[in-house]
Amino acid sequence: MHRYTVGLIRVIKHSDPEKAGLHGRQIMRMFPNMMVETKCIPRQEKGIYDPASKEEAIPKIIDLAKTFLGIDALIISCAEDPAVEQLQRLLPIPVIGAGSSTAIMARRFGQRAGVLGITDDVPLPYSKVFGNGLIHLGRPVGVHNTLELITSAGTHAVESLALQLKEAGACSIALACTGISTIGIAKRLAERTGLPVVDPVVAEGFMAYYECLNK
Amino acid sequence: MHRYTVGLIRVIKHSDPEKAGLHGRQIMRMFPNMMVETKCIPRQEKGIYDPASKEEAIPKIIDLAKTFLGIDALIISCAEDPAVEQLQRLLPIPVIGAGSSTAIMARRFGQRAGVLGITDDVPLPYSKVFGNGLIHLGRPVGVHNTLELITSAGTHAVESLALQLKEAGACSIALACTGISTIGIAKRLAERTGLPVVDPVVAEGFMAYYECLNK
Repeated sequence: MHRYTVGLIRVIKHSDPEKAGLHGRQIMRMFPNMMVETKCIPRQEKGIYDPASKEEAIPKIIDLAKTFLGIDALIISCAEDPAVEQLQRLLPIPVIGAGSSTAIMARRFGQRAGVLGITDDVPLPYSKVFGNGLIHLGRPVGVHNTLELITSAGTHAVESLALQLKEAGACSIALACTGISTIGIAKRLAERTGLPVVDPVVAEGFMAYYECLNK
Repeated sequence: MHRYTVGLIRVIKHSDPEKAGLHGRQIMRMFPNMMVETKCIPRQEKGIYDPASKEEAIPKIIDLAKTFLGIDALIISCAEDPAVEQLQRLLPIPVIGAGSSTAIMARRFGQRAGVLGITDDVPLPYSKVFGNGLIHLGRPVGVHNTLELITSAGTHAVESLALQLKEAGACSIALACTGISTIGIAKRLAERTGLPVVDPVVAEGFMAYYECLNK
């Protein structure tokens, strides 16, 4: 049944394999003939949330990447694309970042994308694709992490920001954190705004499958 | 088995259903749970090969598009994206063009793409995505239609043009005609040049599946 196998690196330490495997299971539901093997970087319970935590993660991602055996492609499941360029030079297989995948998918819908994440800065892969076309209005009010997203105040703040991005001229909304991918927010925001909303886990899954087919 | 159904319009009249169904079968092999129903526009045996034949095809594509029943998305299988914008306004389902899909997929690999087609002009969807980043060095020498591609002189001319595009700084090669998609040229050129080569039928299939999953 599984014609392809891809590795997926979570840039956060989850001790619960159920939680760790969330992105991989979401991708396998979309592409039933692609098996996803997930590994988490060690000793980083809060994941990547600022430049220092990104720097801390990069060598761990590179070490972990080398431990996968027999995979057709490797996904780094983080909107910052940490270590992606380094690994593209190091490994003989395609290496896919969530950030560049999301930005590219959003580019389909026009030259102006609204970035919606939960960090203060825009991840670099989004700026690389959109340059000045990017619309960024900061974080949802009062939301600093994914747990706060699923409160009713958090949901309200995210929807309100999405509507502001639309008003500012966004042709699409590019979610900018894989942590907000898994709560099903993309479809809800698409319904609420009428804009295409690109989910980073969906986007990285598509690019990984594309690379598998092009082997 | 088929969770989704997409319509596919060939912008050429094929009386042989085997030939007509080539793009659809290629897409179904990639996405086994997506059924592709193909229709050809009438009275246009040579397809689209210049501005006049494109103008001639547009009303036929629009009429034909309205005859599909119960599809989740519609593909216009031509690198020019003829009638795509009109149909996006007219139909309640996503409408995907081969041209914009190919350009977007090629954009993954950097800001400079080499366009390789068999017409004199660059299809508009490619310019829209790449602007000045596009590299176009004309047609392969001596190749005016897809039949000439499969001669050994034609193959040689295509490979030689692909290598020239690489030398000119292309990060990827975006094929610019769905007619050259079906002869398996993408993989051969990728091996020959070491560059990613984006096949329009593969790209349109991906975007259609993306739209199906995002319904």
